[in-house]
Amino acid sequence: MIDLYTAPTPNGWKASVTLEELGLAYAVHPVDIMAGEQKAPAFLAINPNGRIPAIVDRDEGDFAVFESGALMIYLAEKAGALLPADAKGRSRVIQWLMFQMGGVGPMMGQANVFYRYLPEKIPLAIDRYQREAKRLLTVLDSRLADHEFLAGAYSIADIANFCWARTHHWSGVGIDDLPHLQRWLAAIEARPAVERGLKVPVDISALFKGGDGAERFAANARTIVTGGERQ
Amino acid sequence: MIDLYTAPTPNGWKASVTLEELGLAYAVHPVDIMAGEQKAPAFLAINPNGRIPAIVDRDEGDFAVFESGALMIYLAEKAGALLPADAKGRSRVIQWLMFQMGGVGPMMGQANVFYRYLPEKIPLAIDRYQREAKRLLTVLDSRLADHEFLAGAYSIADIANFCWARTHHWSGVGIDDLPHLQRWLAAIEARPAVERGLKVPVDISALFKGGDGAERFAANARTIVTGGERQ
Repeated sequence: MIDLYTAPTPNGWKASVTLEELGLAYAVHPVDIMAGEQKAPAFLAINPNGRIPAIVDRDEGDFAVFESGALMIYLAEKAGALLPADAKGRSRVIQWLMFQMGGVGPMMGQANVFYRYLPEKIPLAIDRYQREAKRLLTVLDSRLADHEFLAGAYSIADIANFCWARTHHWSGVGIDDLPHLQRWLAAIEARPAVERGLKVPVDISALFKGGDGAERFAANARTIVTGGERQ
Repeated sequence: MIDLYTAPTPNGWKASVTLEELGLAYAVHPVDIMAGEQKAPAFLAINPNGRIPAIVDRDEGDFAVFESGALMIYLAEKAGALLPADAKGRSRVIQWLMFQMGGVGPMMGQANVFYRYLPEKIPLAIDRYQREAKRLLTVLDSRLADHEFLAGAYSIADIANFCWARTHHWSGVGIDDLPHLQRWLAAIEARPAVERGLKVPVDISALFKGGDGAERFAANARTIVTGGERQ
């Protein structure tokens, strides 16, 4: 059994979708990040960085894993799926996973902070991060023009980038001109395991479709970002 | 033989220091990022994201690897060093590597952009990224209080975080109150392979010690960031 500590964010979904796709048994422990539970001593013992998601593998002497990208590699290797065993296949997946970890995630996260959360509107910062997010999504689109998935067969690289790219509206970035990205998003969204994983720990899909809920969510989320953290 | 395409930045040093530590034969190809060479078709064929560093492994059918974190894992696995083979040891290293890829690198990079490069000074953004960079360096310091290195023996996780943390002055972040981080930085800096790797493709150490050179470098670097990219 694996204990998953998570919240409904793109990084959280990376963990729950991966667990669902791999068919691993897990128990969900919601972490109230608005209330700062991720900074409590009990959680810091699992992840010294105080961020969700994190897992504890009870079958492996309570082995704790933090950082969503590391957690995906650990789970894929444990289950022997979603990450090839040969050196080149593995590396291709890890390259596109790192592309999400170092690029898509941080840049869309900063776009969210300046576009959605901060009460001060700073056009230069909003524009900077929305442009960079768009550039990164365009790199994905170009790759997907002649590849069904990012790195060979469907893998943790697809899951990682999917969980962020699907929230493009939240970052204020349009993808009408990125047809290959749209095709790939739709194909992944239709997978039953993905549908289940995106509802962990709670289904907030309505928020991302706009309207009042989105505004209330953004207002609450300010309590997180005013602490100066990446999302 | 490995071809390394790089420039004198923290991500570039991650590659060259890793190659030096592993004792792998490599040829250096400097990429003039001020002139935008990383966006030229020849380079995009190696890295569709148009960023340094990237490698091409000529011994493996010209296999290209982009994203510095992925490149470090590939090289460590190729050489069988700096990354343990057992599942838990491997995962601990990958966790702290991801901590750099998703946290230390992007946040110090944004601090550099707002503090050093952009002509407009936006206190909220400068403060946000300097605070987050300091928080992340403090997480490293806490870890290093009771660990000689970040994840067991000296590894690619140490190299990755070292290459960014050593440039704290460039980000405008002090570490006088982080004694364990200072001890670890000094220990890694003293390694001959690190000393060699930090001079690839050119020795710019004088720039990071302040003075006129630093100002000129920052002015030139503006041509990169005004394109809206992460550093």
